[in-house]
Amino acid sequence: MRQSRRGQVDPFIVMDVMESARRAEAAGRHIIHMEVGQPATPAPEGARRALAAALDQPLGYTVALGLPALREGIAGLYRRWYGLDLNPARVMITPGSSGGFILAFAALFDAGDRVALGEPGYPSYRQILRAMSLDPVGIPTRPEDRYQPRPGDLPDDVQGLILASPGNPSGTVLRRDELAALTARAADLGINVISDEIYHGLDYGAGFHSALEVTDDVVVINSFSKYFSMTGWRVGWIVVPDAMIRTVERIAQNMFICPPHASQVAALAALDCIAEAEANLAVYAENRRLMLERLPAMGFDRIAPPEGAFYIYADVSALTDDSLSFAAEILEKAGVAVTPGLDFDPRRGARTLRFSYAGSTADIALGLDRLAGFMAARRARS
Amino acid sequence: MRQSRRGQVDPFIVMDVMESARRAEAAGRHIIHMEVGQPATPAPEGARRALAAALDQPLGYTVALGLPALREGIAGLYRRWYGLDLNPARVMITPGSSGGFILAFAALFDAGDRVALGEPGYPSYRQILRAMSLDPVGIPTRPEDRYQPRPGDLPDDVQGLILASPGNPSGTVLRRDELAALTARAADLGINVISDEIYHGLDYGAGFHSALEVTDDVVVINSFSKYFSMTGWRVGWIVVPDAMIRTVERIAQNMFICPPHASQVAALAALDCIAEAEANLAVYAENRRLMLERLPAMGFDRIAPPEGAFYIYADVSALTDDSLSFAAEILEKAGVAVTPGLDFDPRRGARTLRFSYAGSTADIALGLDRLAGFMAARRARS
Repeated sequence: MRQSRRGQVDPFIVMDVMESARRAEAAGRHIIHMEVGQPATPAPEGARRALAAALDQPLGYTVALGLPALREGIAGLYRRWYGLDLNPARVMITPGSSGGFILAFAALFDAGDRVALGEPGYPSYRQILRAMSLDPVGIPTRPEDRYQPRPGDLPDDVQGLILASPGNPSGTVLRRDELAALTARAADLGINVISDEIYHGLDYGAGFHSALEVTDDVVVINSFSKYFSMTGWRVGWIVVPDAMIRTVERIAQNMFICPPHASQVAALAALDCIAEAEANLAVYAENRRLMLERLPAMGFDRIAPPEGAFYIYADVSALTDDSLSFAAEILEKAGVAVTPGLDFDPRRGARTLRFSYAGSTADIALGLDRLAGFMAARRARS
Repeated sequence: MRQSRRGQVDPFIVMDVMESARRAEAAGRHIIHMEVGQPATPAPEGARRALAAALDQPLGYTVALGLPALREGIAGLYRRWYGLDLNPARVMITPGSSGGFILAFAALFDAGDRVALGEPGYPSYRQILRAMSLDPVGIPTRPEDRYQPRPGDLPDDVQGLILASPGNPSGTVLRRDELAALTARAADLGINVISDEIYHGLDYGAGFHSALEVTDDVVVINSFSKYFSMTGWRVGWIVVPDAMIRTVERIAQNMFICPPHASQVAALAALDCIAEAEANLAVYAENRRLMLERLPAMGFDRIAPPEGAFYIYADVSALTDDSLSFAAEILEKAGVAVTPGLDFDPRRGARTLRFSYAGSTADIALGLDRLAGFMAARRARS
């Protein structure tokens, strides 16, 4: 069959790392996983109990925009997190944040439209855009700007802009005034703004602000995957302006029918499992403390301020100009899987690495021991 | 925000019927649902038990193409159903058949490509195509062809063709030789064929054939929603030619990350719950028998041969030229919700109705009593 041009998207490089790690484990080696962007913990216990109790119900299609109680519960989260009074009708449940991006891109952009995004950034933005006949336009960001775009960086020939705070891989957070300046500049230029807020809640003191605090003219995307530790459940949400509700509802009816019902039941209960989510967060906070204590001392000293999420992004240009080989060497010699930056930044990612600290503290501590040994041996050789 | 042109897809008319039915029920009326396209039964008990037993596991992301055991299990189904020896690497798990269509359309077609489909047909084909910047091209089919396209109907200026057997709303089935002739003609014209086989297994003696029995050069879409009674779980699959595996994998990694993990666990166990699926099928068979015994006698006598699925599609042009008002009248006076044909056939659907018999036999029998009373009163008035 003839395949499309737009379907020829780039592979994930991290998948090759994961496959190498899997092969090493199959060969009997013990590997510490600092490459994966997901919690090692299951969904909150209350969420799993709620689903177990619902398994006698048919769990057929829900309405396209999701269980009304779940949409109201998320509006409640916006009150708690941001002090916002959000109309639940603007909240729509999606099949993961991935589904939110598909909906937003279909509702906002026509084929050939150009959408700007910061580099480094989540690689799937670029690939989903391409698969939907849109052109990603990279904005190289600067370490001194904490790898976030400035208002002056916005091109005047794009139709869209994706913001991400906390960023992946950077972990850096846009301040409220920065969000206001970026969205105001985008409005001046007639650019539709999509704000990816999937790591909200994973905060170590810097705070986190929704784009909805500064404007209603934005599409916000979020998910139960990270703070609520529910990656594989594929349940996220999107908040849209009033004028977009019917458009997005119709697209969702046709493209998804509905988000997975069982996952929605679990997610609704997860909203009440704050103690467990905060306990997970305390583990990440300790992991982060260990990372910040030990990584610079062993030579990974040029890092973005890891204000949120569970990543540390390191400039390793003093150590290598081939992060792919460097990551392979770390896996081979230290038994630690890390992610080369190429997925996140096609231009500069050959000189960066991402370390995830979403695992258990024992694993992170052991991984740091191994990395320290590897770096000491490396220094001794050179 | 500026919205896209492609995002302005048509609403589902059946949603208005469902909303009217819901309002009638909220006002205390008892409504029989012959409008919904889903089983009233839950997922098989074995599927729910398997998920309950797995709820202690993290259920994080699976690989993008789904659990290997599930892909192998589906290949086993192709052996059982069609006698085919299918490489499990060609089977990819998707978030419902909806996800399969998104993947197929992204992998096969570029913006502006034209995709042919039979009318009447599943309305979301058209809307998903539009939302992905593709042009649906309707092929009006004939009652004497059991509402399926003939090879001579295929336009020579399209890049794609969607086949559906059993059809929705028609319930009619393409014979093996018809599938062979249609796919051969499409190949001659250089048209990519997508075969929607979501109602396979729901068979009342006519048999059912996969397009894979006659060609490997086809994308087949299927789901656990219907035969396995798992609509709200959003787990389907797609079978692609060898040369498309890597393309579809990369798109799936980026657009979906993975299908819902919990649903995959349930679906894997559902493959072993054949007795329960066949018991559901026996209920549909009895419902269908009742429908065929009673609908013609009360005046719905111009119906497509309901060979599969759980629908009866009736030409009601002798009764009305406004199926929307007619359906509203049936709901109001008989307390039975049925679907006007406009969703399925924009040209001729004002003179057709779809009756679903996916409910319980008691409900179907009661609904038929009510319909008979309504039609008798209508005749008496005229």
